[in-house]
Amino acid sequence: MKFKIRPATKEDCKEISRMIMELAVYEKMPDQVKITHEDLERDGFCQNPFFECLVAEVPEEHKSTEGFTVVGYGLYFYNYSTWEGRTVYLEDLYVMPEFRGNGIGKGLLSKVAQVGKKKRCVRLNLSVLDWNTPSRDFYAAKGARDLTDSEGWHFIRFDGQNLDNLANEAPED
Amino acid sequence: MKFKIRPATKEDCKEISRMIMELAVYEKMPDQVKITHEDLERDGFCQNPFFECLVAEVPEEHKSTEGFTVVGYGLYFYNYSTWEGRTVYLEDLYVMPEFRGNGIGKGLLSKVAQVGKKKRCVRLNLSVLDWNTPSRDFYAAKGARDLTDSEGWHFIRFDGQNLDNLANEAPED
Repeated sequence: MKFKIRPATKEDCKEISRMIMELAVYEKMPDQVKITHEDLERDGFCQNPFFECLVAEVPEEHKSTEGFTVVGYGLYFYNYSTWEGRTVYLEDLYVMPEFRGNGIGKGLLSKVAQVGKKKRCVRLNLSVLDWNTPSRDFYAAKGARDLTDSEGWHFIRFDGQNLDNLANEAPED
Repeated sequence: MKFKIRPATKEDCKEISRMIMELAVYEKMPDQVKITHEDLERDGFCQNPFFECLVAEVPEEHKSTEGFTVVGYGLYFYNYSTWEGRTVYLEDLYVMPEFRGNGIGKGLLSKVAQVGKKKRCVRLNLSVLDWNTPSRDFYAAKGARDLTDSEGWHFIRFDGQNLDNLANEAPED
């Protein structure tokens, strides 16, 4: 199947928002999605955007059963390792189920790697859920390492009231 | 002990670089540190910097046994959650051993939370090593959740030849 990968535009945010929800349903946490396409438009298409995004598009004749031609996305941003320098972080990689098996996910992943290399990034990082065997196998087959298994890194998060409490206890300037 | 927390300047990069190495030694991976203070100067003090950093400074009369007055740092940057929006990621939080127990680590952490809240971030994320009980207890006592334990998130990384291979296989524009 023919497909094209291109940088997302502000006009793609409704489609990206739709797929963000589809991915969250797959990850069994749809109730955690609070974001709207307006948020994506504001935060991704401003000066110093908080993220960049690629979308995968198929020709009209291959549109989905529901009529969509934007069928996948890869949303990423730049991080920094104090050990190795610039890195790129792939927050989401998603291809609609009926379009899988056509190399679209691999295409999006490779393109993010290429964009990162152009910015002199030395790592491409991402996160997966432990039960998500298809994704873990997909990344492992391309040479990724699981740093939680091999080095013992755990994700820690402050949010909600805990984050507010921390911020309120900050020393005066 | 009196201390002050302030945004790092380009002139602090040698001190930050020294402490990055001290932290990596503590984390038992000093051979992974490739970065120099010149890298930090270039990547943190340019237009659209890759990171921001706070440093903790003590008065001259409390300087370390080796004569240092910059005794801690918190290095962070902005990420993006497709479920909740803007987030801040604390890459490193470090206080020199002889200055611990004075609230400096807590001060740095709180200040990063405050800076993040001002940017409308809804999460403060970070990573710890599973064997690093003092750090895990420190964060847990302040209300942090371990997302690897509770939801099963694992860190995945491409680097070196694997990253090059991916980038080289990217589809044409």
